[in-house]
Amino acid sequence: MADPRFFRNAGPFTLARLAELSGAEMAAGADAERSFDDVAPLDTAGPTQFSFLDNRRYVDQFALSGAGGCVVHPSLAARAPQDMALLLSADPYRAYAAIAAAFYPEPDCEAVIHPSAVVDGTAQLGPGCRVEAGAVIGARVELGARCHIGPNAVIGEGVVMGDGCRLGACASVSHAIIGNRVSLYVGVRVGQDGFGFAMGPQGHRKVPQLGRVVIEDDVEIGANSTIDRGAGPDTVIGQGTKIDNLVQIGHNVRIGRHCVIVSQVGISGSSRVDDFVAIGGQAGLTGHLRVGTGAKIAAQSGVMRDVEAGTTICGSPALPVTEYWRQQAVLGQIARKKGRP
Amino acid sequence: MADPRFFRNAGPFTLARLAELSGAEMAAGADAERSFDDVAPLDTAGPTQFSFLDNRRYVDQFALSGAGGCVVHPSLAARAPQDMALLLSADPYRAYAAIAAAFYPEPDCEAVIHPSAVVDGTAQLGPGCRVEAGAVIGARVELGARCHIGPNAVIGEGVVMGDGCRLGACASVSHAIIGNRVSLYVGVRVGQDGFGFAMGPQGHRKVPQLGRVVIEDDVEIGANSTIDRGAGPDTVIGQGTKIDNLVQIGHNVRIGRHCVIVSQVGISGSSRVDDFVAIGGQAGLTGHLRVGTGAKIAAQSGVMRDVEAGTTICGSPALPVTEYWRQQAVLGQIARKKGRP
Amino acid sequence: MADPRFFRNAGPFTLARLAELSGAEMAAGADAERSFDDVAPLDTAGPTQFSFLDNRRYVDQFALSGAGGCVVHPSLAARAPQDMALLLSADPYRAYAAIAAAFYPEPDCEAVIHPSAVVDGTAQLGPGCRVEAGAVIGARVELGARCHIGPNAVIGEGVVMGDGCRLGACASVSHAIIGNRVSLYVGVRVGQDGFGFAMGPQGHRKVPQLGRVVIEDDVEIGANSTIDRGAGPDTVIGQGTKIDNLVQIGHNVRIGRHCVIVSQVGISGSSRVDDFVAIGGQAGLTGHLRVGTGAKIAAQSGVMRDVEAGTTICGSPALPVTEYWRQQAVLGQIARKKGRP
Repeated sequence: MADPRFFRNAGPFTLARLAELSGAEMAAGADAERSFDDVAPLDTAGPTQFSFLDNRRYVDQFALSGAGGCVVHPSLAARAPQDMALLLSADPYRAYAAIAAAFYPEPDCEAVIHPSAVVDGTAQLGPGCRVEAGAVIGARVELGARCHIGPNAVIGEGVVMGDGCRLGACASVSHAIIGNRVSLYVGVRVGQDGFGFAMGPQGHRKVPQLGRVVIEDDVEIGANSTIDRGAGPDTVIGQGTKIDNLVQIGHNVRIGRHCVIVSQVGISGSSRVDDFVAIGGQAGLTGHLRVGTGAKIAAQSGVMRDVEAGTTICGSPALPVTEYWRQQAVLGQIARKKGRP
Repeated sequence: MADPRFFRNAGPFTLARLAELSGAEMAAGADAERSFDDVAPLDTAGPTQFSFLDNRRYVDQFALSGAGGCVVHPSLAARAPQDMALLLSADPYRAYAAIAAAFYPEPDCEAVIHPSAVVDGTAQLGPGCRVEAGAVIGARVELGARCHIGPNAVIGEGVVMGDGCRLGACASVSHAIIGNRVSLYVGVRVGQDGFGFAMGPQGHRKVPQLGRVVIEDDVEIGANSTIDRGAGPDTVIGQGTKIDNLVQIGHNVRIGRHCVIVSQVGISGSSRVDDFVAIGGQAGLTGHLRVGTGAKIAAQSGVMRDVEAGTTICGSPALPVTEYWRQQAVLGQIARKKGRP
Repeated sequence: MADPRFFRNAGPFTLARLAELSGAEMAAGADAERSFDDVAPLDTAGPTQFSFLDNRRYVDQFALSGAGGCVVHPSLAARAPQDMALLLSADPYRAYAAIAAAFYPEPDCEAVIHPSAVVDGTAQLGPGCRVEAGAVIGARVELGARCHIGPNAVIGEGVVMGDGCRLGACASVSHAIIGNRVSLYVGVRVGQDGFGFAMGPQGHRKVPQLGRVVIEDDVEIGANSTIDRGAGPDTVIGQGTKIDNLVQIGHNVRIGRHCVIVSQVGISGSSRVDDFVAIGGQAGLTGHLRVGTGAKIAAQSGVMRDVEAGTTICGSPALPVTEYWRQQAVLGQIARKKGRP
C-alpha cells in the first residue's frame, strides 16, 4: 500500500472497471466483479492488490506472486498462478500506468496564492492556479489555468506558461515560452544564459544570449536539469519529450517530439535532435550535430558526428552498435591470447 | 588558521589531550604538555599547529614541514623533522578528523524558527530545532530533536526526519522517511517522481510513482544530488552511506550500508548496491543490476552486468580490472607497432 | 528580433558606430551611415539587421543570407552577398559580442532591497546593490557596489563579494571570498563541505572542512554547478575562468586564470589546473593531479595522470591525442578484418 502520509487511495475498483480504465482485456473466465483495493509490486502484492508484469526478468516473480490480479502480455499469461485474475494487454506497462493513476489520481490542489508568495502586480494568473509559500513571480508573467507553482520557485519577468503546468520547489525559469501540461521538476533551471564566450588570449568575452527557451506541450524536465536559452535562435524542447534529472541542454539546441533523454546526458550548443530519439544516461553530444528521427544513443556514448535516423550508436567516440561490439569482442580476444603463457 | 569569518577555534589543546581525543598514541619521548592552537596542512603549518600525513604522495612535504605536531602512521614516523611532536596511528586520517573536530566543533545553533519561515500548523518539530529564513515546512511533517533546516529549504507534506538532521539551503525533500543525523546538502532533491513512462509511438505516458525515499541513519548526500522516490517499492539509502555532489539515484534503487559514491555517478532504476561498495566519479550503472558487498567500481565505468562481491571493475563497458588494463596495454602495443614505418 | 518581453533593444546604430564599438574595420566601399536596428542569426536576418560569421560550417548560409550587415573574417568576405555591408575582423565572434552588447546592454536595475528579503543587520551592502524577493543575506556579509542578488538566493555568514557581482535565483554561497564582476548563475552551490571522510570498516568519519572558496575577478559559474570549499587549503577559481553548468569542483582544487570548463566536468579534490586550460564536457580528473598551462582535455576524457602544458589529451584513460586516434584507427582496422568471412 502506498504510504498514506504521501498518497491518497481512490479505490477499490472491480476487475471490469480496471479493464475499462486501462483498455486491457479480461482473460477468459476472469471474475469481472472481483474487487481490488490497491496496486503493488509482484513480490509484495496480496490477494486484494493488483500488479503488472512488464519485464521478462521478473517472470519467475510473477509465477510465484500472491497478487490477486495482474496485467500481463498475452504471451506470458500461462505462467500466472492459478488464482490470479488477469488483464491482457499488448502494452502492460501502459495499462498499469492507467490503473495506478486511477488508484492514485493527482490530488486536486486548492487554488490559492500563499500570503508569503511574491506575485508582481502585472502578472496574470489563470483560474485555478496555486502558488506555494515563498514563490516569486515577476512582472508581466502569464500563467494559464490550473498551474501549480512550488514553494520558493522563481518565475522571471515576461515568462509565459500554458494550462496545467507544474513548477517544482526551488526551480527557476526565465526567458521562456512554455506550453500546456509541462512539468518542470524541483531545482530545474530554465532560461539562463548559455555558455557563449568569444575566447581569446586576453580573456574571454561574454556574448549576449538573446534567444529564449520554447517548451512545447506535455514536456517533463527532471530535477536539477539545466536548459540554457538560445544565443539568438531559441532553444526548443518538442512536444511530449521527457527529460530526466541532471541533464544539460545547451543554447540553440532543438529537440523534437517524444524524445526520451535519460539522466546526466549533455547536449552541446546548436545540436538538433529529431523526433522519437532515445538517449541513454551520461551520453554526450558535441555541438552543431544532427540526430535523425528514431535514433538510439546508448548510455555514456560520446557523439561527435551526425547520427542517421533509425540507427543505434554506442561508445565514445560513438560507432554503429554492431561495429562497436565487434571492436570490443576483437579486443577481448586479442588480450586473452596475449595473456596466455 | 581557518578564517575566523567562517570558523571558530576551540583550542588550544595539549598533545596529551589530542592523543586522548583521537585515540592515537604519543610517540616515545614526545612532550605531553606541548600546546597546539590550530590545525593546518603540512606545507603551511607552523610550530604551534598540528597537521597530518595520510597520503604517501606528501611524505617529502612531511619531512620538510614546519608543523609543531603531526599524526602519522608509525611506519613513516622516522621521516619526521626533529622538533615535530608525533602522534602515531594506524589510521592517521581518522585520527586527524577527531583532532580537527575538537578544534572546530560544529557550532551549536540557537533553536529558533525565523519569522519568515513558513511552518504548517500541523507540523511537529522536536526540541532544539532551528529553521532558517524562508524555509517552508509542510503539513504533518515530523522533525526530531535538533534538526537544522537551512534558508529557503522546502520540506513537503508528511516527511519524517529523525534527530540531528541537517537540510541545506535551497534543498527540497518530499515523500521521504529519514533517520537520525542525516545531512542533505544545499540544493539536494529528495523524493520527486522517478523517470517512469510507458513509452509508445503515440507518446509516453507517465506512470504514477507511489513509493518513498527511505534514508537511514548517518547518511550524507552532497550538493545538488537527486534521489528519486520509488515507483512502488521504496528507494533506500543505507546507514552511513556517503554520497557526493551531483549524483543521480533512480527510483527503486537500494543502496546498502557504508557505501561511498563519488560525484556525478548515476545509478539507474531498480539496481541494488550492497554494503561497503565504492563507486568512483562519473560511473554509471544501468537498471536492475546487483552489485555485491565491497565491490569497487572505478571512475567513469559503465556497468551493464551484475558485479560480484569484493571485485574491482573498470571501463565502459566495465570489465574486471586486470582484464581491462590488459586490453588497454595490448591495444597500446599494437598501435605502436602499426605506427612504425 | 530578440523577444521584447525579455530584452530591450538600444539600437539603431550606424555601420560606422558598430565598427567603432567592436574594433572591426569597415570593408572598402561600405556605407558608413547605413543603419541597423537589430542583430539576428544569418539564416533569419533581414536587411536592417546585423549578423556574424564565425564558424566555417555556416559559410553557405552566409553566402545566401538576407542580413543587411555582417562581421566576418577578411578571408571569407568574398563570399558575401552583394548588398551586405561588411565589417572585417580577425576575431568576428568577439566583434559580434561587442555589437550585440551595444544593442542589448545589461539593463540597469534599480537599487532596492525587496521587503521580503531577509538581510542581517550586520551585513554591509555597497551602493547600488539590488536584492530580490526572498533572498537571505547572513550576518557580517560584505557586498561591494552594484551587486545583484537574485530571488530566493542565499548568502551565508561572513561571505565577501566585490563590486558588480551577480548571484542567480535560488543559488547559495557560503565560506567564500569573491572578487569583482563574478557571476554565479541560478542554482549554483559554492562553499559547502567537500567530500572528506576517513573511511573505515566501522563507518566513515566526517573530516571537518576548514578552508574557503576564493573566486577571483570576472569568473562565471554556470547553473547548478557545485564548488566545494577547501578542507584546509582553499579551493581557488582564477581570474576570468568560465565554468559551464552542472560542473563539480572538489575541495582544495586550484584552477588558474582564463580556463574554460564545459558542462558536467568533474575535477576531484586537490587537483591543480594552470592558466588557459580548456576542458571539454563530461571530462573527469582524478585527485591530486597537475594540468599545465594551455593544455586541452577533450570531452569525456578520464584524466588519471598529470598533463603537460600545451598538450591535448583524449579518451578514458586519457592519452595524447594522436596516440588516442591511432589506437582507435588500429582497433577499427582489426575489427573490420576479423569481420570478413
